[in-house]
Amino acid sequence: MNERASELVNIRFEPSGLTAKAQPGTALLDVALEAGVHINASCGGKGVCGKCRVLIEDGEVQGGLSEKLSQKDREQGIRLACQAKLSGDVTVRVTDESALNKDALKALASGPAQQATLIGAEQLKAEGRYQPAVEKIAVKAQPATLGDNRNDVDRLLMGLKEKGEHRFALEYEAIRELPGAWRKGDWQATATVLRAVYGESGHNHILRVEPGDASAHNIAVAVDLGTTTVWAQFIDLNSGEVLGTEGDFNSQIGFGEDVITRIVYAGKPGGMRRLQEAASKSINGVIKTLARNTNVDLNHISICLLAGNTTMTQLFLEMDPQYIRLEPYVPTAAYYPPLKASRFGLALPDHVGLLVFPSVASYVGGDVVAGVMGTGMHKDERLTLFIDLGTNGEVVVGNKDWLACAAASAGPAFEGGGIKFGMRAAKGAIENFSVNPVTGEPAILTVGRALPKGICGSGLIAAVAALFMSGILDERGRFNLDHPSDRVREGEDGPEYVLVWAADADGGRDITLTEPDIDNLMRAKGAMYAAYMTLLAGVGLSIQDLERVILAGGFGQSINLERSQIIGLMPELPADRFTFVGNGSLLGARLACMSNSLRAEVGEIVEKMTNFELSVAPGYMDNYTSSLFLPHTECERLFPVICGRLKEARQALRDLKK
Amino acid sequence: MNERASELVNIRFEPSGLTAKAQPGTALLDVALEAGVHINASCGGKGVCGKCRVLIEDGEVQGGLSEKLSQKDREQGIRLACQAKLSGDVTVRVTDESALNKDALKALASGPAQQATLIGAEQLKAEGRYQPAVEKIAVKAQPATLGDNRNDVDRLLMGLKEKGEHRFALEYEAIRELPGAWRKGDWQATATVLRAVYGESGHNHILRVEPGDASAHNIAVAVDLGTTTVWAQFIDLNSGEVLGTEGDFNSQIGFGEDVITRIVYAGKPGGMRRLQEAASKSINGVIKTLARNTNVDLNHISICLLAGNTTMTQLFLEMDPQYIRLEPYVPTAAYYPPLKASRFGLALPDHVGLLVFPSVASYVGGDVVAGVMGTGMHKDERLTLFIDLGTNGEVVVGNKDWLACAAASAGPAFEGGGIKFGMRAAKGAIENFSVNPVTGEPAILTVGRALPKGICGSGLIAAVAALFMSGILDERGRFNLDHPSDRVREGEDGPEYVLVWAADADGGRDITLTEPDIDNLMRAKGAMYAAYMTLLAGVGLSIQDLERVILAGGFGQSINLERSQIIGLMPELPADRFTFVGNGSLLGARLACMSNSLRAEVGEIVEKMTNFELSVAPGYMDNYTSSLFLPHTECERLFPVICGRLKEARQALRDLKK
Repeated sequence: MNERASELVNIRFEPSGLTAKAQPGTALLDVALEAGVHINASCGGKGVCGKCRVLIEDGEVQGGLSEKLSQKDREQGIRLACQAKLSGDVTVRVTDESALNKDALKALASGPAQQATLIGAEQLKAEGRYQPAVEKIAVKAQPATLGDNRNDVDRLLMGLKEKGEHRFALEYEAIRELPGAWRKGDWQATATVLRAVYGESGHNHILRVEPGDASAHNIAVAVDLGTTTVWAQFIDLNSGEVLGTEGDFNSQIGFGEDVITRIVYAGKPGGMRRLQEAASKSINGVIKTLARNTNVDLNHISICLLAGNTTMTQLFLEMDPQYIRLEPYVPTAAYYPPLKASRFGLALPDHVGLLVFPSVASYVGGDVVAGVMGTGMHKDERLTLFIDLGTNGEVVVGNKDWLACAAASAGPAFEGGGIKFGMRAAKGAIENFSVNPVTGEPAILTVGRALPKGICGSGLIAAVAALFMSGILDERGRFNLDHPSDRVREGEDGPEYVLVWAADADGGRDITLTEPDIDNLMRAKGAMYAAYMTLLAGVGLSIQDLERVILAGGFGQSINLERSQIIGLMPELPADRFTFVGNGSLLGARLACMSNSLRAEVGEIVEKMTNFELSVAPGYMDNYTSSLFLPHTECERLFPVICGRLKEARQALRDLKK
Repeated sequence: MNERASELVNIRFEPSGLTAKAQPGTALLDVALEAGVHINASCGGKGVCGKCRVLIEDGEVQGGLSEKLSQKDREQGIRLACQAKLSGDVTVRVTDESALNKDALKALASGPAQQATLIGAEQLKAEGRYQPAVEKIAVKAQPATLGDNRNDVDRLLMGLKEKGEHRFALEYEAIRELPGAWRKGDWQATATVLRAVYGESGHNHILRVEPGDASAHNIAVAVDLGTTTVWAQFIDLNSGEVLGTEGDFNSQIGFGEDVITRIVYAGKPGGMRRLQEAASKSINGVIKTLARNTNVDLNHISICLLAGNTTMTQLFLEMDPQYIRLEPYVPTAAYYPPLKASRFGLALPDHVGLLVFPSVASYVGGDVVAGVMGTGMHKDERLTLFIDLGTNGEVVVGNKDWLACAAASAGPAFEGGGIKFGMRAAKGAIENFSVNPVTGEPAILTVGRALPKGICGSGLIAAVAALFMSGILDERGRFNLDHPSDRVREGEDGPEYVLVWAADADGGRDITLTEPDIDNLMRAKGAMYAAYMTLLAGVGLSIQDLERVILAGGFGQSINLERSQIIGLMPELPADRFTFVGNGSLLGARLACMSNSLRAEVGEIVEKMTNFELSVAPGYMDNYTSSLFLPHTECERLFPVICGRLKEARQALRDLKK
């Protein structure tokens, strides 16, 4: 495959006989979970619970020793799977006394996620499309004399012309800075140029001028302003290098979990102002962290590209969002003119421009447009389903000739919202999960391998899928209270499963997954699935016609395809048709920083995309109701493979119990 | 000539036999002064001094009766010339006992001013060029439905498209207002459109949207921001009607009389800020007065067009003007982008746009560009000299093929600056003057016919010309202290002439004209004349080649051509080559409000105009030194007619004294 494939090492797990390949340095526990091999693990991979004991039968690993292991254990080759790092081919025996037999283990395993190789600066450069949204152009001029005392602006335009650059309009602030810049820089000055593309006028705008040659530092901030989370990246526009990525919750959450409650709040006196300030405060926090981590001087930032759903965008721009909520759901605008970041409370210098991604409809916003642009589906022949799984789910279907979109009111479950111990994919969030169907004991991995604090979207999907496959959860999302494990219990919110006991948790109380949590996830995934079905039916197509499915969403790492099919979130299609791109909104914002030709495509996408209102689309409610099951009421027709696997797994469990 | 000529009445003055034509309703004193007939008059035309007694020999006048006249006077036909209004042809005998003989009177008389018929809305309409800078376009739309829930902006653009209007970019604020406007206006909204012309991008900008049909009210403010005075007009853009004109001193005067001292002040900490605030405060005062007088709601104002010299413009825009002062005199920019009036402290609603006239050079600014545009000399075949007489004098020479310009450091004398009793042409300012050469008794007319307070530019020129012709002042600007009149006296600033005795003055002290006043005026007029000479020589031409002279300047009414030739301010050419346009800067700003095609011509003018730096131009200093006389050291060569008239007048005086 690629160059790295030759470096991979082989792992064989016994007694299941399951094998996997992984990069040297990967922890054994990580590989096991991805391969569908269960190893009890309670502390998220931190190495303190001592439960993930494995026997290295053949080959060697690095580390994995711990005070939790006796001298004898160590001599026998016992290691902690979360601490043992791969360095060569190994055979590993899972020593868990209740390890399942080989067939049952295989039946319960699920496949790895397929990650997309995202387009980046190198590819854009190779295609000749690396032309950043903002360029810094240094210009040298002859000093003014009585014989040539043309004005300072003309002198700059002349210098740019000599470099083959034309059609400029200087912003007021740039004009103001210019006299000082020329003289301080000894008749050399640097213009920060925002080139014209969609929705803008025909001129290249000069946002700023600096003395001398200041072209070495030219940073962009790409921002994904989500309903639940805010993500930002610093991009060095000279090299295309992503200098850092950070995220945090959108502190608007304090005013309501979803866009509807936010819009209602915005209608109260001062509400819009407070929501705007909350959003900019959250972005500022992320920018501050980025600046600290990357050592970037904020004064070197030239531009901020912001993508968000329509409500987030309008709230950030202080544009009354109430008509988004009221039928017939009319957004204010598709395009916004180039703005100034500081005007909207961003803690960036006054010269920093703000470009906001355009929206298609009230519930298909700039985040989706950015994601579609980032994936290139609008330039591809193949019929593609693009799914953006954020607080709201948005679905786009089409190819280079047409695009249709719809919004599904999925709610924030995929971002940890509305989930009792839900959290975003930050340090301590359970991001991977497996369960021993007999004992009910879990294996959990947390982000940063820290003590567990809560569970994020990918962890939630993994947990529900695994609990369902193991029979701890039924197809209606109800826990099997007859299960022998004491982790399945009646809790204060009804039946629940204890993901982490208080002793192993960061926070000192049991981390649980409740039936209301499961209901929230089911409604979310049901809304998504109903959206694909309805949108495809609306254009006379069905799931089987899809040549490609692209999943974008605010998942920290990625979600596992098979698990998401098990819960009925992803349609059942061969694995090679799926691509996971992570945060599509951030991806699009980043790419738009790097390429004006991509920025121009944003306009094409908006013009081309037809929005369907699911609330009035025929069949939507039926599709939704049918989707409120695991994986679906029509399991055999729509999920034949999962259905078969499920039967096998159930049989394996029955056999074990005999 | 024009339609009104047929309505004029004929006036014959005895004993001089001088005749004049005037409109019915004009006061006899006004006609007399314009015709060069002296009638003693001390109170500025208010009717309280009772000195301007005349005998109506033939015909009738309206009014002119006063308690200052005895019953016998009245029965004899004696009237006060300042109160008597023309209603038909009359013959008037000037009863002043010391009235001069006919020939002397004729010798001392000077010709009337020739006022330009300025281009206005009606002419622009007739030429199909009346297309205001800002239009309000009302649009009706179908209400949004689920089947057509396009965004609010698209709905507006669609409505405009149906009216044949394309290529719009909405400003941020307009986008923000739109959702409310559509709903409040029951799906009718009005867009305020600023069309693109020079220096702007290719889009028509929507500055504002209002609910319903708000197109009935669309007002522009034209502003001339002068170094000494600020003038503004309200223009109804729907009709082209000028609703009102107001002016005031620029309160920056407190920081220095001329641009140089202002620039120096701007270099002090906080100086630029204070100067900016002083300018906007002055403009705000004028706007407030205009709003009160015209009953215009400021919310109906759409746009403000501002013309000023380069220093005034840069100070108003808070752009450091220091390089204007320092060699090689580099201004910051020619063009400024469309701005917002409120951003610069103007007390206008936030939606009001601000268009600033472009500059050609450090001392040839937007005021001159506006004036040239307003006169149309850049479209005319004739070789034209354009003279802008403000605080600084600017001179443009050229025709439709080329334009050359230069700045003369004339100082503020023409606006009343640097003159002991100088004032702008406001109520109580002496604006016209004549003198009886034998008695030295004056006739004065004030603006608004109020009690005299001081003297404005046109009054100053009239006074110096008349005092010079009558021998009270010599060619070097020194008073003849041997003159029998007690008005010529030694004052605290040296020899002086009492224009108004304290008893007749508003302010209770003698209003005088001093030798330092005369020196200031001489330097000002000398700088102007030297500028014409030098600029014409620079392009290989001379005064005699001029086919047209256009005089613009901040004179309240107009200045008298012959008088300005007598002092050597205007070149000596036949009267029919001269046109007086008043405030050219305000004229240009007003016309630019009314016509985008004229606005486009502004850019053409800037591109076409070549600036000459007089300070380094060969011959300038010699020309200046030669001009510091009345009218000029080379009187016979350059002012042969004036020279002859002067000799005649001197002879007449000598004859009288015999």
